[in-house]
Amino acid sequence: MRLSRYFIPTIKETPSEAQIVSHRLMLRAGLIRQSAAGIYTWLPLGLKVLKKIENIVREEQNRAGAHELLMPTIQSADLWQESGRYDDYGKEMLRIEDRHGRELLYGPTNEELITDIFRREVRSYRDLPLNLYHIQWKFRDEIRPRFGVMRGREFLMKDNYSFDLTAEEGVHSYNAMFVAYLRTFARLGLRAIPMKADTGPIGGDLSHEFIVLAETGESEVFFDKGFDAFEIPGEDVFDGDLQPIVDQWTSLYAATDEMHDVENPGVDMKNIQTGRGIEVGHIFFFGDKYSKPMGASVQGPEGDIVDVQMGSYGIGVSRLIGGIIEASHDDNGIIWPESVAPFKVGLMNLNVKNDECVETCDRLYKEFTAAGVEILYDDRKEGAGAKFADMDLIGLPWQVALGPRGLKSGMVELKNRATGEREEVAIDDIVARLS
Amino acid sequence: MRLSRYFIPTIKETPSEAQIVSHRLMLRAGLIRQSAAGIYTWLPLGLKVLKKIENIVREEQNRAGAHELLMPTIQSADLWQESGRYDDYGKEMLRIEDRHGRELLYGPTNEELITDIFRREVRSYRDLPLNLYHIQWKFRDEIRPRFGVMRGREFLMKDNYSFDLTAEEGVHSYNAMFVAYLRTFARLGLRAIPMKADTGPIGGDLSHEFIVLAETGESEVFFDKGFDAFEIPGEDVFDGDLQPIVDQWTSLYAATDEMHDVENPGVDMKNIQTGRGIEVGHIFFFGDKYSKPMGASVQGPEGDIVDVQMGSYGIGVSRLIGGIIEASHDDNGIIWPESVAPFKVGLMNLNVKNDECVETCDRLYKEFTAAGVEILYDDRKEGAGAKFADMDLIGLPWQVALGPRGLKSGMVELKNRATGEREEVAIDDIVARLS
Repeated sequence: MRLSRYFIPTIKETPSEAQIVSHRLMLRAGLIRQSAAGIYTWLPLGLKVLKKIENIVREEQNRAGAHELLMPTIQSADLWQESGRYDDYGKEMLRIEDRHGRELLYGPTNEELITDIFRREVRSYRDLPLNLYHIQWKFRDEIRPRFGVMRGREFLMKDNYSFDLTAEEGVHSYNAMFVAYLRTFARLGLRAIPMKADTGPIGGDLSHEFIVLAETGESEVFFDKGFDAFEIPGEDVFDGDLQPIVDQWTSLYAATDEMHDVENPGVDMKNIQTGRGIEVGHIFFFGDKYSKPMGASVQGPEGDIVDVQMGSYGIGVSRLIGGIIEASHDDNGIIWPESVAPFKVGLMNLNVKNDECVETCDRLYKEFTAAGVEILYDDRKEGAGAKFADMDLIGLPWQVALGPRGLKSGMVELKNRATGEREEVAIDDIVARLS
Repeated sequence: MRLSRYFIPTIKETPSEAQIVSHRLMLRAGLIRQSAAGIYTWLPLGLKVLKKIENIVREEQNRAGAHELLMPTIQSADLWQESGRYDDYGKEMLRIEDRHGRELLYGPTNEELITDIFRREVRSYRDLPLNLYHIQWKFRDEIRPRFGVMRGREFLMKDNYSFDLTAEEGVHSYNAMFVAYLRTFARLGLRAIPMKADTGPIGGDLSHEFIVLAETGESEVFFDKGFDAFEIPGEDVFDGDLQPIVDQWTSLYAATDEMHDVENPGVDMKNIQTGRGIEVGHIFFFGDKYSKPMGASVQGPEGDIVDVQMGSYGIGVSRLIGGIIEASHDDNGIIWPESVAPFKVGLMNLNVKNDECVETCDRLYKEFTAAGVEILYDDRKEGAGAKFADMDLIGLPWQVALGPRGLKSGMVELKNRATGEREEVAIDDIVARLS
């Protein structure tokens, strides 16, 4: 992509409305713009990152055997009245009346809707297990939206719902999501630790939060040093027994501020380190909490009618962008992990008035593109300083700079954004080097 | 995908609530389920088709030089009050009040929001031309939602907005979209004819509707036989002059029922054929209708301040699924064009009690998957009749059936869903044949 024809409105100044670093950098790097309180437009660069995160989440869901569908954003209030949560949910739920005076709402979560689909379509234990997910915009009318996409009102979430005949099978589905989440966050370049969690308004008694470690994280967390040694499960584990993996990852102490208990017997506090964390996922197993009142049952193998065992599992997809930036940035800007970077390479022509620079950069741009490398080509009429600053700000993993001096020696300067290391690479080698 | 583990709830009976064939088939083939009036859940098979259509639309937008961003579904009423359309829009607009009593709405279209983004970020003619699109859910509170996804309330739309310095450049942007639309619909397996259109509430004086021909289409259309001979523009045309292409495609008579005028002088009615059509796209060039009142201007090359010239362009992405089915079905079900089919191949094991059938089908399933062929494997404990009926209903382009008789002769039966042609193919050749 040629930057001269693209739309990345970067900002030099620090936006005064942004209190945390991810919010500041998302505004400055031209990823988002606020259109109303807690409601954002995703500009091209931000949307590219969002789609990459979404795709990694999707791949890991599919690998774990979940099927994607898409529920609407607008739901009828009827189902929520049936489950009893319509009144419970309070003012965070955006309530709407249509032209005929029917009560609707903008879904903050989908337990009711998915349970309704299930009970209308599934009759037999032979159709189980079933795990359905969607990646959809949701709305929670936060009283005081803040921190950019970390606590917005309209946000993108992956949520899924598992249906099983027995509690034992339900726990297996829970474990599959537990493992899928470990893999997902690792692929996003994040260090995430599952922590025992309060089940809150969702209900049930088995639940974990996945907390990403970041120096600028929103809350204090406590966890055993032993987590360092745990390996992320491979992609081929889902056909086997997942309990040993879950047992390992839940064998050590890990707690958020709210759940932390220094009096906890059996915890050796000298192994515990403190840090700051950001919640990016939450999984629940809640048995028949929704299936029983809503009549989501199947015929079992003996002909008996059984309320299904359910779990629900959420990842804050748009929130993750904030989480990744909190975990990976420096004073100059964002440092994208390669798996979610909007482009892999940023190519800078340091002197657009020099015809030979233009020709060589144009040629490199074509060659990178032909090689399938995602490249952003800064061909703007700007000074070298502004180009370096913008490139650091938007945080592409690799920077390639070419100016008249390099041209003379036949070399480009290659910079690794994460480490800051620079080296000279022959112009004719640079495409192969980064392909 | 193994059908035994998937979620395609097909229906044998004709649903009584569905008045048109696409709605009936989308319910019967398990593509969608209604969750509230005019609001649907997209089941896995329907979502797969929706994503494929979305991707083709996206590829052609990118090729034509448009940049993707994503505006939120919920908008502040302020901008609509500023443009004067808040009152004009009437009851089709879903109006919402948040917990603080602020007026919001679920966007039915995005002229105001994009113009606001433009005026906040773009200052100079050097940043033009700019063409921004998004693919986002929209809501129109139809008084009587009907015809399934053809006239739903929550629907997926691609809409984009072009910004140019001069009217001439604006027309070039319009032409680029005109050509992109020709290419998009052709790739979707549709025959679409651009027809001169009324500009309605969007405004402006240059506008075309793209009408897909389908025997069961919603309205009568009139068009010259000469359209048959026109070629779809190639993918490399966008760097050149597009006017000759647009001139050709607008040189012949084509009109919807509302615009049709038999008294039109210069039209030789003997070349005009009538048919039925479905509107799937609509493009507008409206100059400074929004930029002027909303102050979307740039500094021109002479330092003067110029209101930008705008156009907007829409494709009904979710509506297209209905359109494709209306244009491509028979008494037994849907006939997907290969470019949007949820899977390319359906493999049927006709006797799951026969171990050798199971083994051979399992092996073929693995081989197809390894070859990168999207395959749906009907391994359910159902009779052959039910499997053939379901496979015809869901309309995959290629059906491969294997039973004990075929096994003996070493042959599978291959059926082309569109033509109905059947042939015997050696078991060992079938994967290569369809790869």
